[in-house]
Amino acid sequence: MRTQVAIIGAGPAGLTLGRILERAGVDAVVIERRSADYVLGRIRAGVLEQGSVDLLRRLGVGERMDREGSAHDGAELSFDGERLRIDFHELVARRVTVYGQTEVTRDLMEAREASGALTVYGAEDVALHDFDGERPRVTYRKDGASHEIRCDFIAGCDGFHGVSRASVPHGALSVFERVYPFGWLGVLVDEPPVAEELIYAHHQRGFALCSMRSRTRSRYYVQVGMEEKVEAWSDDRFYDELRRRLDPETAERLRTGPSIEKSIAPLRSFVAEPLRFGRLFLTGDAAHIVPPTGAKGLNMAIHDVAVLGAALEECCGERSSAGIDAYSARVLRNTWRTERFSWWMTRLLHTYHDEDAFTRRIQRADFDYLCASRVARQSLAENYTGFVPDAGQA
Amino acid sequence: MRTQVAIIGAGPAGLTLGRILERAGVDAVVIERRSADYVLGRIRAGVLEQGSVDLLRRLGVGERMDREGSAHDGAELSFDGERLRIDFHELVARRVTVYGQTEVTRDLMEAREASGALTVYGAEDVALHDFDGERPRVTYRKDGASHEIRCDFIAGCDGFHGVSRASVPHGALSVFERVYPFGWLGVLVDEPPVAEELIYAHHQRGFALCSMRSRTRSRYYVQVGMEEKVEAWSDDRFYDELRRRLDPETAERLRTGPSIEKSIAPLRSFVAEPLRFGRLFLTGDAAHIVPPTGAKGLNMAIHDVAVLGAALEECCGERSSAGIDAYSARVLRNTWRTERFSWWMTRLLHTYHDEDAFTRRIQRADFDYLCASRVARQSLAENYTGFVPDAGQA
Repeated sequence: MRTQVAIIGAGPAGLTLGRILERAGVDAVVIERRSADYVLGRIRAGVLEQGSVDLLRRLGVGERMDREGSAHDGAELSFDGERLRIDFHELVARRVTVYGQTEVTRDLMEAREASGALTVYGAEDVALHDFDGERPRVTYRKDGASHEIRCDFIAGCDGFHGVSRASVPHGALSVFERVYPFGWLGVLVDEPPVAEELIYAHHQRGFALCSMRSRTRSRYYVQVGMEEKVEAWSDDRFYDELRRRLDPETAERLRTGPSIEKSIAPLRSFVAEPLRFGRLFLTGDAAHIVPPTGAKGLNMAIHDVAVLGAALEECCGERSSAGIDAYSARVLRNTWRTERFSWWMTRLLHTYHDEDAFTRRIQRADFDYLCASRVARQSLAENYTGFVPDAGQA
Repeated sequence: MRTQVAIIGAGPAGLTLGRILERAGVDAVVIERRSADYVLGRIRAGVLEQGSVDLLRRLGVGERMDREGSAHDGAELSFDGERLRIDFHELVARRVTVYGQTEVTRDLMEAREASGALTVYGAEDVALHDFDGERPRVTYRKDGASHEIRCDFIAGCDGFHGVSRASVPHGALSVFERVYPFGWLGVLVDEPPVAEELIYAHHQRGFALCSMRSRTRSRYYVQVGMEEKVEAWSDDRFYDELRRRLDPETAERLRTGPSIEKSIAPLRSFVAEPLRFGRLFLTGDAAHIVPPTGAKGLNMAIHDVAVLGAALEECCGERSSAGIDAYSARVLRNTWRTERFSWWMTRLLHTYHDEDAFTRRIQRADFDYLCASRVARQSLAENYTGFVPDAGQA
């Protein structure tokens, strides 16, 4: 089989890139190791920046998002029970949209299926070949048979544990990493959210987040130690711990019910550099991971593939290779901005049990500065809603 | 002898407080361990916030400052040779004034002498007594004789190593501290400054600062390891090192000459809590230390004594004890804001040789965020020029 772009991975990065290329008239095949149902079963982020919303609309996959998603003009921070609303709309004239990553993925899958574009699910032993030359190839096995796809470019959209980054020759990649000494225990429940907006809570017992997927489905998290096992957390224990970390008024309002999903995710900051190796490009989680505190993972991936999609369109149309030549540097600038913000917001809100008293006071002073300074709140808001650099700094 | 307020220390904190009380008609005696010449020989900071300038003017000691000091509308940051001007005036409609701490001290000393108010220099074995009761006393020896001053209040303005904080009973004080793994090697030279505004430079070899005291006197610093001895640094070695850390254009312009002072200062963040013990109050360096990167030490001290002076006037006039009751909490709020900013600016600009690659990239991302965001530059500017909290947050 032959295509212009082989896209590895059918998560939101791969499917969004597929949609961009389809609309640009560039032929692409998506190759996914798992089944479509498995991909849709992964519970992930749920906050979309305005730029992500705009792109999905332009790609013709925004209809259900506009109907079922909800626009949020602000979010609440709480620090040892003291509450501060960050009014994004008033501060920076932007908002975010709450719409689950699973739903974005479903909309993209359905649009791809309707268009007749090819997605190979259940592809085993995916391997990337010859991307350092002119004629890259992707091989895989499916239903016992071996397959080969010849292509002009390979887009690595297969996440942190995928084959794309692992295919880069040893020594060609620099890696920057921070592993945090805690994880997030998350619960999904079919009850209305405790508040209309997200609540990010710092408490000496640890961080907590009240989030939601819809008006009837809530997503709650509590910071837990690395050694914690999900089996040790009954629903009751989880809700008790969550309530202790919220201000009393919010805790009182919490509506609980049987969890429909419960899992522990580690927190990691990770950046691989560069993002291009000949005709292979890394995007999204295959290239970089942020801790979820800033709600940036999905938005970074969408940013990456928007840049890559435009560059590939330009190059496949034989107009210019400027876009693919600039891809790595351009995406890395955005990546480090986002890493910085996600690291900062993680440090602001979590409890680091091994830190000294001076550092804990500086953390508190960071919160107090937000309370006392409109400029500090603007800084948080401009990053949370999707940073747009000054002219000339893109 | 009897007075209303015994002020320990004749540095800028003690002398400013003395001036405030004198103008308010409150009787005070300043007790200083050293001679006046020794105090004036200490080379210290040189950047005054607008609030400090305004207070000194109101106290009638601003005449020479207005004549000889110079207003600065901005400062330059440089990171690995990349330059960014922070335009305070355009960003937050404020400026700072460059006027040496030594000159502030001299003006205050002269005003105090002219007014006839008593300052005891060369007071040995100063001791603070009974400040937990109604009748505090200060004792000292001078010229072989023992002296006692009975007073209503004691103001501890005698710096980090002074007797005031050391007099607080063990266990009554909480201390928060960070010692940085480097110091500043500083040189004072009678040559015109290399630039009209201050230059804060990050370089992989370490931080450098180009500052000044006047149009003909410059003050330069380079970050050095803790183990460095000033004897190992000839003027030539110092200037060579400084030039390597500046952008080439600035390095070219540097005018060098024989140093008239050269010393190494350690960097420290330190906060003692609370700031009141009965009738003893701690102010300035006796209560808290910041690394000099944000130019905040002198300004914090002036802020502290402005609050204390008003509170003591209110109380000595038998109007209310509300001011002295609120002193500690109010000053600590400002202290932690300033500690946060000084810590942040130190981390932004210094080279930490023991830090991992991820942290170094976050440091670079902090600088890039300043380049890309007006809001980020406003945040730096509002703190550097003297933070004024939102209404209701004082």
